[in-house]
Amino acid sequence: MGAAGSEGRERSHWGWGHADRAADRKALEALAPELRSRLGFGGERIESPVPLDAVTVAPSRLRPPAGFAAILSDAPDDRIRHSMGRAYRDVVRGFRGRFERTPDLVAFPAGEEDVRRVLELCSDRNLAAIPYGGGTSVVGGVEPRVGRGYRGTVSIDLRRLSGIAELDDVSCAALIRAGTLGPDIEDALRPHGLTLRHFPQSFEFSTLGGWIATRAGGHFATVQTHIDDLVDSIRALTPAGPWESRRLPGSGAGPSPDRMMLGSEGILGVITEAWVQVRPRPGHKASRPVFFPSFGAGAEAVRAISQSGLDPSNCRLLDPLEAGTTGAGDGSEAVLILGFESAFAPVDQQLALAVECASDHGGRPEPEPAGGEGDSAARSWRSAFLDAPYLRDSLIALGVLSETFETAITWDRFGEFHSRVGEAARRAVAEVSGAPAAGEGAPRVMCRFTHVYPTGPAPYYTVLAKARRGSEVEQWDEIKAAVSEAIVSAGGTITHHHAVGRDHRPWYDLQRPDRFADALAGAKRAVDPGAILNPGVLIDPEPGSPP
Amino acid sequence: MGAAGSEGRERSHWGWGHADRAADRKALEALAPELRSRLGFGGERIESPVPLDAVTVAPSRLRPPAGFAAILSDAPDDRIRHSMGRAYRDVVRGFRGRFERTPDLVAFPAGEEDVRRVLELCSDRNLAAIPYGGGTSVVGGVEPRVGRGYRGTVSIDLRRLSGIAELDDVSCAALIRAGTLGPDIEDALRPHGLTLRHFPQSFEFSTLGGWIATRAGGHFATVQTHIDDLVDSIRALTPAGPWESRRLPGSGAGPSPDRMMLGSEGILGVITEAWVQVRPRPGHKASRPVFFPSFGAGAEAVRAISQSGLDPSNCRLLDPLEAGTTGAGDGSEAVLILGFESAFAPVDQQLALAVECASDHGGRPEPEPAGGEGDSAARSWRSAFLDAPYLRDSLIALGVLSETFETAITWDRFGEFHSRVGEAARRAVAEVSGAPAAGEGAPRVMCRFTHVYPTGPAPYYTVLAKARRGSEVEQWDEIKAAVSEAIVSAGGTITHHHAVGRDHRPWYDLQRPDRFADALAGAKRAVDPGAILNPGVLIDPEPGSPP
Repeated sequence: MGAAGSEGRERSHWGWGHADRAADRKALEALAPELRSRLGFGGERIESPVPLDAVTVAPSRLRPPAGFAAILSDAPDDRIRHSMGRAYRDVVRGFRGRFERTPDLVAFPAGEEDVRRVLELCSDRNLAAIPYGGGTSVVGGVEPRVGRGYRGTVSIDLRRLSGIAELDDVSCAALIRAGTLGPDIEDALRPHGLTLRHFPQSFEFSTLGGWIATRAGGHFATVQTHIDDLVDSIRALTPAGPWESRRLPGSGAGPSPDRMMLGSEGILGVITEAWVQVRPRPGHKASRPVFFPSFGAGAEAVRAISQSGLDPSNCRLLDPLEAGTTGAGDGSEAVLILGFESAFAPVDQQLALAVECASDHGGRPEPEPAGGEGDSAARSWRSAFLDAPYLRDSLIALGVLSETFETAITWDRFGEFHSRVGEAARRAVAEVSGAPAAGEGAPRVMCRFTHVYPTGPAPYYTVLAKARRGSEVEQWDEIKAAVSEAIVSAGGTITHHHAVGRDHRPWYDLQRPDRFADALAGAKRAVDPGAILNPGVLIDPEPGSPP
Repeated sequence: MGAAGSEGRERSHWGWGHADRAADRKALEALAPELRSRLGFGGERIESPVPLDAVTVAPSRLRPPAGFAAILSDAPDDRIRHSMGRAYRDVVRGFRGRFERTPDLVAFPAGEEDVRRVLELCSDRNLAAIPYGGGTSVVGGVEPRVGRGYRGTVSIDLRRLSGIAELDDVSCAALIRAGTLGPDIEDALRPHGLTLRHFPQSFEFSTLGGWIATRAGGHFATVQTHIDDLVDSIRALTPAGPWESRRLPGSGAGPSPDRMMLGSEGILGVITEAWVQVRPRPGHKASRPVFFPSFGAGAEAVRAISQSGLDPSNCRLLDPLEAGTTGAGDGSEAVLILGFESAFAPVDQQLALAVECASDHGGRPEPEPAGGEGDSAARSWRSAFLDAPYLRDSLIALGVLSETFETAITWDRFGEFHSRVGEAARRAVAEVSGAPAAGEGAPRVMCRFTHVYPTGPAPYYTVLAKARRGSEVEQWDEIKAAVSEAIVSAGGTITHHHAVGRDHRPWYDLQRPDRFADALAGAKRAVDPGAILNPGVLIDPEPGSPP
């Protein structure tokens, strides 16, 4: 049934994206030596994923009740494909055929009435209901890890709630169904000369509903950094009934209902559609790389730019290692990619001002580019960015562990924060991976700024290390714990845009105000009295007693 | 005790601001004929306010318990001064000496520990606790209208929690105590070359805590329209304990704790301090008025500018009547005041682009101004804006009713919305005031845009009518109901930045999602189990049973 409500091309049951884009044996053999020469490790042995037909899962504890045959599936294929997100720990488990927790049923509602019926079923039978958008969670947000209080688990796949329901080109707004994938949103807007301009790395396989539920970070490096800033209203179904905010360009009437649903990660309701701001496609673009002797020097320039009010759409600072690894630089310098865009007027002067500000802080701009976003650094970085999730699949086959950590911290604390987190990451990776902390074969810890604010940056760390074949998950868990501990104890947030899910819970619990957690639990009790929605995410499950 | 914890100059016990700024008899006699010639009504008879010493109030039901003498007052003077906000209906009641509901006690906590003790006292004795910042609420937010479920009411005046606790000029952020008045914030930041740039009309007498509790609208016409957008973290005391969010430039970790406290209007906790973004004082400013044959034509230009990405700091469109009344125009045309500002670089080119966009939509720019914000329209409008609350006091003495309504609506619905609301306002005012709907002596209904978004404007309506002497409150109530009904039934929000309080409840209840109201009530129960905090605001009081 999975295929039925979905895109034509088959998706990998374990890896990032389309099965036909996975690297074959030949490609991996070609990649192996390059990897070794670049990283100093990896590619020693090429392993193959456990094929889908060799995967075994525990039998479902549930059968689709009468009247639900058309929207509920207990087919192993569907259950396997909805058992995990796409964190490294998920992908490597999938690669090894370790599908430890599979939902007992997968729902493919064709509309809101189906969603309502499924929630009613879950409430009546004390089943955990897990909203599922594109399944790209990197924090265990869609995994049926719900504790012992439930009779079963149901993954609710929203792919059939897809498409643009209404377009208002006077207000530059669109009512979009929650299950619509990124590319489908842009394809539908393009003929009207409009765009949502929300491009998370998961863009190809993530949905509007998922973005809203997880407060996804998007295209703009400044000001409108999260999907939050593009939402005018949200409609969701809670077990207690529909929750629909009034469509408004702005309001000051009490706490924002939308801001309570944004980031609720499926514990308050199933988001079904939302009104979002769209905009004319930007015809004017200008981008330019600026090189710095060090990441710290670049950070000072970015601080000045972030406080200048210039608000570039792209302000991505890569440290020398990441610049070298992604081809945006030669590895000897930090690279700042500055970009502006507009549908209304040329942006060259804004770019010139930002470049001038960067130069004043010790930056060396690349000689005038051909124009547009044609410069090599931006181009090579962008392709690397979009291919990264596919590359990660290959790295697993080649024995390389890759993980990312993203956070935010105020400028006054950034320097110490960065050295503490970087040091913790290098130490943890080296210890856990049994590799030297520096030199030949040492793990790579790289950093970039994905978004910046006047009061601080959002650093994004990438870790590459030699995998402990067969126990990558345990290796990942140890590294995750050490770095997350460092991030939160140094004053950062456990996530700037990847969400909390289940994997970030221990550190989220240290970060959020206890009274707020109580308030959120109180809010949940009011709309989800049976506590069936995504138990274990954000707050502890409080399962209702079975009828 | 009131004076003790407060600014030196005495504030009027009934009117807007400092008592010594109130117009005297002589000034009112001079104003009367001008008013009649301008409005066609008003000034027929000059009345005088009931002096403070002639005001009688019901005796307090409470006495300060032992150990609270230093921070709790039952002095009639303090109780009278904390019995109402500053809506027209409040000021006119004060003018006539009608202080119908006074708090039984007024608390002047010197710090957080005092706030905690007062909340504990209120919880123990089932007393309603009403946080009080500058007392400028125009929606009944600080009035002890709490229903019958409480043994008494305590107004908690936060004026002593004042000043900047910490300044971080690296991150451009400041930790400011909740009771700090607008001018005191700017005075403290000025020596550092910094500014918060939050200038609501109540600026002179409102506080940071009040702004956060009510989601106050500020200086910027676009993007950062509310205080919400300047807050990095909030600390509040709830009856269940402190609620303090982590100071972060941005985060995606679950629903934002700050966004739940923003707009909570005192029902979740007493806000005690917050980290807010500050910025270098803008040395570059440029502003220019553009004239349009009609408000509708101006609105089309503003729509184009709001969707252009130019993001002017000022984009205030006045309809011909408001332009004429405030002196920004001659009354024959609508006036758009466009302004840009920057601390980093000249803004003349951005202004030129916005003016060009306005011209393309039928606007006639004023000939090049001398420069800066020196143009006459902006200057005269600004002074009128700041003096308006004082003028309102005089209007009451002169028999003129004045009221404002502010909302937001998407562009596609604005045309019909505006005519429906305007028509409802004119009809209601005429009926209630017994005046002709048009021509000689007809009431004035004027409109401006205070803030604009890509998806819609925030229209602000001002109503001037001949007062029904002695029954102004009833007159106001009837007009308020008719216009509010029109605003909400036509799809707008009952408030864009004035808050909900008690006066807006009937229409807020129609606007907000019912499930969200349940969730908010659930959140409140978790942090305020005795339901002592500002009962009747946002949601219905659920008084706990007295111990």
